[in-house]
Amino acid sequence: MTDTCAELQRQLHHDIPLTQTMGLRVLAWDGVQLRLGLPLAANGNHAGSMFGGSLYSLAVLCGWGWLLLKLREAGIEDGQIVIQSAQCDYLQPVLADAEASCAAPAEADWQRFLALYRRRGLARLHLCSEVPGALRFAGDFVVQRRG
Amino acid sequence: MTDTCAELQRQLHHDIPLTQTMGLRVLAWDGVQLRLGLPLAANGNHAGSMFGGSLYSLAVLCGWGWLLLKLREAGIEDGQIVIQSAQCDYLQPVLADAEASCAAPAEADWQRFLALYRRRGLARLHLCSEVPGALRFAGDFVVQRRG
Repeated sequence: MTDTCAELQRQLHHDIPLTQTMGLRVLAWDGVQLRLGLPLAANGNHAGSMFGGSLYSLAVLCGWGWLLLKLREAGIEDGQIVIQSAQCDYLQPVLADAEASCAAPAEADWQRFLALYRRRGLARLHLCSEVPGALRFAGDFVVQRRG
Repeated sequence: MTDTCAELQRQLHHDIPLTQTMGLRVLAWDGVQLRLGLPLAANGNHAGSMFGGSLYSLAVLCGWGWLLLKLREAGIEDGQIVIQSAQCDYLQPVLADAEASCAAPAEADWQRFLALYRRRGLARLHLCSEVPGALRFAGDFVVQRRG
């Protein structure tokens, strides 16, 4: 695991203690895509598949983590990230450990978001993450400069 | 707590062990509306508010529980309930323990759903739940007869 992954995992486990019980792991970050993992054992339901709420949490944290890392890369450390709205579609039950990935939005959207944040201290970004074959997630994240 | 509430809480804690760590509680059921509660302490984030994934889980379980209780009331015990898709909007951060409620859909929709399930063993129902002032959730739940 790279230092960046280890540090993000520590931060998630510290900031949101429930993610420790869930066994959330930061798997990979290449500067474009972030991948997070979740074990079935700690997140199962009565049907032997992964609880839909855990899958959603995995997807939303993948978007949240992606945004945190990209903001840092852009030198922005004073932004508070919150989820504003989300849509998710469950395609198939997850019967094993799950991996989610969040990829970069269009470069023009990212640059528009960054410019708006720098000017107003408040901007919104649409991000998609997925558990391939199992979950499609799209969320609007808002970043606000801390007062 | 009524027997129905205590039994549903036991079932949720048993079927989805993560709900024990989350401290999920079944608060009230009057045959029309189901209310569930979630403590901030076990579901907090770095900002001192409730983690968005926990809020989502509360809302989806409120719909799931509502459907389970209504199916039982209709004498249906052989249905497996899964969430197919969901939309949620976060209105305000939750800075205290949260309560979600799920109310009945239109009676005509419920009767159509029941008739379809009895005929085909497969039917879908749209349910809304909310944490007043904080979260609006709408989900499509699918019930399939166990093979």
